[in-house]
Amino acid sequence: MPETIRNTAGEIMTPEFVRLSAGTTAREGLLELRASGLDSDAMYTIYVTDADDRLIGALDLKTLLFAKDDAPVESLMDANVMSVSVADDQQHAAKLVRKYDLMSLPVTDEDGLLVGAIGVNSIVDVIEEENTEDFERMAGMLPSEESYATSSAWMLAMHRIPWLVVLLLSSLLCERVIQGYQGFLLTSGALGILVVSSMPLLMDAGGDCGSQSSTMIIRAIALGELTLSMLWEVLWKEVRIGLLCGAGLGAVHFGITMLIFGATPMSAMVVALSLLLTVTIANILGCVLPMLAHAVKLDPALMAGPLISTVADVWWPPKS
Amino acid sequence: MPETIRNTAGEIMTPEFVRLSAGTTAREGLLELRASGLDSDAMYTIYVTDADDRLIGALDLKTLLFAKDDAPVESLMDANVMSVSVADDQQHAAKLVRKYDLMSLPVTDEDGLLVGAIGVNSIVDVIEEENTEDFERMAGMLPSEESYATSSAWMLAMHRIPWLVVLLLSSLLCERVIQGYQGFLLTSGALGILVVSSMPLLMDAGGDCGSQSSTMIIRAIALGELTLSMLWEVLWKEVRIGLLCGAGLGAVHFGITMLIFGATPMSAMVVALSLLLTVTIANILGCVLPMLAHAVKLDPALMAGPLISTVADVWWPPKS
Repeated sequence: MPETIRNTAGEIMTPEFVRLSAGTTAREGLLELRASGLDSDAMYTIYVTDADDRLIGALDLKTLLFAKDDAPVESLMDANVMSVSVADDQQHAAKLVRKYDLMSLPVTDEDGLLVGAIGVNSIVDVIEEENTEDFERMAGMLPSEESYATSSAWMLAMHRIPWLVVLLLSSLLCERVIQGYQGFLLTSGALGILVVSSMPLLMDAGGDCGSQSSTMIIRAIALGELTLSMLWEVLWKEVRIGLLCGAGLGAVHFGITMLIFGATPMSAMVVALSLLLTVTIANILGCVLPMLAHAVKLDPALMAGPLISTVADVWWPPKS
Repeated sequence: MPETIRNTAGEIMTPEFVRLSAGTTAREGLLELRASGLDSDAMYTIYVTDADDRLIGALDLKTLLFAKDDAPVESLMDANVMSVSVADDQQHAAKLVRKYDLMSLPVTDEDGLLVGAIGVNSIVDVIEEENTEDFERMAGMLPSEESYATSSAWMLAMHRIPWLVVLLLSSLLCERVIQGYQGFLLTSGALGILVVSSMPLLMDAGGDCGSQSSTMIIRAIALGELTLSMLWEVLWKEVRIGLLCGAGLGAVHFGITMLIFGATPMSAMVVALSLLLTVTIANILGCVLPMLAHAVKLDPALMAGPLISTVADVWWPPKS
């Protein structure tokens, strides 16, 4: 369902860049630059190609400027130049620019011929676009290239409804589970009320903690800080976080319901323990689902708050 | 509570930049550049200062390179140069660089003296940092400058617990409200079960829609697409989106419970209408709260999914 809005490097590159042949001298190069009439930004990195137009190196304007007049650019260039292919994802290009502090990135076609370049300012736009897409996906929306202000209510609703319906279907499962307990709820009096009244609280806490975990994990994957090999380490960390947060919440809830609301120790303890369990399970789901999605090449951002909350909810009723 | 991790322009600027005095000629300027030994990136934009070291203009390396040898830089520069003050928020610097496709941004002190510059590559890092902070805040966490992988479970839990406790306290309110209905729940049989069993579904739908709206609004504010003057327009749009999404969800729920689960038309209709109302209210909260936060200079990202879900939950019980 979630159609992807992914531009390729080929779609965001510009043909505005400086290319010099390997044999050109520094002086000839500067004259070519002057004659090119190109924008300044496009001149900061100069690409060098061989006789077949294949990218063989890069140098910056300063190097060219301060070189000896008759030095061939081939002797000035850095042959170790990073490049992307036209079919590469724009996100890949953005990662390289961010990681290596590049001012521009050359783009080659299938045959390795230099066909364009992506400037750092385009990468800034790509980064914001990708972040917007992650925000949208993580809130259970189909990503859109239109801005909020220019989108109609109808269009926005159409981007929201598909996931809402999916989430509704899983909530329906939860509804059925609770209905399965109706005999118990109708006959157990105070205990039934306890279960029912603590439901929103447990659901909220589980949803909140699951969102926290999944947000951290999705973001860390997006920034390249987490790899699949760290799954067990992350899982163990989230279990500990879950126990800490669950214990904290449980203690606060226990204290308030006992001291202020006059709950019985038994009922206060039941809810506190349910909190501990719910939060820990939500944390586990919040880290495992995005990492599994990443493993099977799905966007981890799909496994975010809304979905995790619903899954955590369905887990809830049988526990109480 | 949410302490801010906001660096100022002064904290992220570098002293590595080229400054020429107004009277310098193009040829002298190039010789100064050569002698500066600065990194290439820092040379692309050259700043011009008056006798008092006050920033009066900027020119790019290419302009200097292709100018007549004896042209004074003052005649080559663009006097309309954008700058930030040392005390300005890094986010403000990032917005200028993004909006005007700048390669670097000069930084002045309180007296207007040029003291540093921020390169576009630093801005790329700032943008990712600010986005991470928004992701964290929107999931109800205190922002952290440490990466997930290098943070201990204890530290991560400490960043999560404060908001979780705040959210727990509002959930407690919800718990009390439901307990207030216990007489009704204990005596009304099937209707009580209907109310209880549809609770998670209504809460989830409200939370999901509220998250969707607040995410769109928070993101649009962050990207500078929404201003306070658009509040009524946005509110009206969200009401329409709420009615569309609510009607869609209500119809799906009505159909499934009637046709598959054999619910009575009356009970199916009650839940469908509750869905419509819950979703619309959640959408209204999801747009109004972040915009109000923005109005009172709070970070709109605080008014995100977790808080909106809880507020929407508290609204829920009295409706049914």
